[in-house]
Amino acid sequence: MKKFLNTVDTLLAESLGGFAKAHADIVQLHTEPYFVRRKQPTRAGKVALISGGGSGHEPLHTGFVGTGMLDAACPGQVFTSPTPDQMLAAAQAVDNGGGVLFIVKNYAGDVMNFEIAAEMLDCPNASLFINDDVSLPKNHSTGRRGVAGTLIVEKIVGAAAEQGADLATCKALGERVIQATASMGVALSSCTVPALGHPTFALGDNEMEMGVGIHGEHGHATLPLASASAIVEQLAAAINDDLRPAPQQSALLHVNGFGATPLMELYLIYGLAAQYWQHQGLNIARSLVGNYTTSLDMAGCSITLSLLDDELLALWDAPVHTAHLRWGC
Amino acid sequence: MKKFLNTVDTLLAESLGGFAKAHADIVQLHTEPYFVRRKQPTRAGKVALISGGGSGHEPLHTGFVGTGMLDAACPGQVFTSPTPDQMLAAAQAVDNGGGVLFIVKNYAGDVMNFEIAAEMLDCPNASLFINDDVSLPKNHSTGRRGVAGTLIVEKIVGAAAEQGADLATCKALGERVIQATASMGVALSSCTVPALGHPTFALGDNEMEMGVGIHGEHGHATLPLASASAIVEQLAAAINDDLRPAPQQSALLHVNGFGATPLMELYLIYGLAAQYWQHQGLNIARSLVGNYTTSLDMAGCSITLSLLDDELLALWDAPVHTAHLRWGC
Repeated sequence: MKKFLNTVDTLLAESLGGFAKAHADIVQLHTEPYFVRRKQPTRAGKVALISGGGSGHEPLHTGFVGTGMLDAACPGQVFTSPTPDQMLAAAQAVDNGGGVLFIVKNYAGDVMNFEIAAEMLDCPNASLFINDDVSLPKNHSTGRRGVAGTLIVEKIVGAAAEQGADLATCKALGERVIQATASMGVALSSCTVPALGHPTFALGDNEMEMGVGIHGEHGHATLPLASASAIVEQLAAAINDDLRPAPQQSALLHVNGFGATPLMELYLIYGLAAQYWQHQGLNIARSLVGNYTTSLDMAGCSITLSLLDDELLALWDAPVHTAHLRWGC
Repeated sequence: MKKFLNTVDTLLAESLGGFAKAHADIVQLHTEPYFVRRKQPTRAGKVALISGGGSGHEPLHTGFVGTGMLDAACPGQVFTSPTPDQMLAAAQAVDNGGGVLFIVKNYAGDVMNFEIAAEMLDCPNASLFINDDVSLPKNHSTGRRGVAGTLIVEKIVGAAAEQGADLATCKALGERVIQATASMGVALSSCTVPALGHPTFALGDNEMEMGVGIHGEHGHATLPLASASAIVEQLAAAINDDLRPAPQQSALLHVNGFGATPLMELYLIYGLAAQYWQHQGLNIARSLVGNYTTSLDMAGCSITLSLLDDELLALWDAPVHTAHLRWGC
């Protein structure tokens, strides 16, 4: 394993310390327990948005803390859920009278811990569960996983909260985005979890892993490496079958790198995916290309399509000022 | 070689097509010859800034075309200089009466081709040559290479040009930033050039390459992998010896990923580097952490320190609206 670190045990703390130092104008780091909160004070009565999850997916979620997006993020150890005390402390720190909404990727550990925190805060039903990964069937036993679509929910609900929407409105808006969003990923390599020290799965020189998540788990099929066009066709068809967009609908197309894939390739994938949906008559109204929901040093990418009406597009466009998503501020 | 592409021959064109489609609000792609220009019209008399170089370093330079930064970028094939006809066509397209300034990383091919273009345009001395890589001695036969410091020059001179500075002022400003900027990089892996199909050099499981550039060439020493603290100490000391900052000076600290190194590790490196210079009494006034000047899929990072006085800091802070650097707009 080759990584820039001092010890595996101190990696997360040192990394969060560096992050907080680099973005001291936007965030504050709280330790014992760990959470990152926005520095700018919020308007009294604003709904507080809190997300979190295992580390190793940066910039998700800490990189999206700030004006117009998250109020706080709770980072767990690499690929490990944060604990309820983190969420509790974060909620107590950022609740400004408007209530708290948790944005949670649908993984057993995250769901359990955020639900415990919600119960302790005496605010049940205060969570949005993200499940955009269409590589698993809709009736999968633990539900579908939350992947790169998460940031779209965070951005749109974050804008609404900033504009004064109340808790019920924010939650309903989040549910709309979740319904309208689907993702699927493919990997060209596994990733190396620091505490493990070796890749989590092996892939042959001419193989790709189709339908991967973001935790170094196997996908649903190991296939011979195909052309970019064939790969995009497969990912886009799965997403399209799930969302079944009507012609002329507007959409945000997000091509996300898992960490080790050059932007050159991500833009090539974007061009092919945009072409696919333009042929279907869709209006690709917004785009986002880059490494936003990563899986440490995994080579690969995911495609996310989010069907956004004018209201949701306006919220996507609203000002945001975070470490890794910033416009209009 | 595992990459997302259709054919090696069409990779660049397909990637540029995707980039232009994803950022159609900011840029326009010109083909035959290839260049990317900003979409927003400029004020008459504005100095036009043009950069370029081999592809494979994205988001440099195409991702920095837009308001407040570059007027155009000329992409060559992977790690290959663009040709004078590209620079000539770009200059003719974006010159708006204020003259053209080329921002050129100091590599033989780039320098030669930009100089030919400058001659054909009959504007000699219209280039800034970036040479921030302190891993080579100052008296190196072809001079030092331009690496991650390039974007700092592009941003600061871009802001000045946007605010109405004339050609001589822009050039002098660029020279000041070049003098005040030093970088050094370390790699944990090589990168794979698509046309070559295999890594450009081999590294053992416990080795790192110190003093690397951004073209997959060997660094100045292959060393046993060290702790992040020891690596930062070595990079920062080399930079510090070169710049010899006075205590209390303000600086921009930029930690740049080469493409395959997770943000978690880059922030850890940032924290250590910030600590190094804070111990020296420096004021780390601004920071930039992420993959900005990449070397395809190389694992590794570079540290750049840029000593910026109040005037230069204000230009760094000025509004910028490009695909991969955006604030204040």
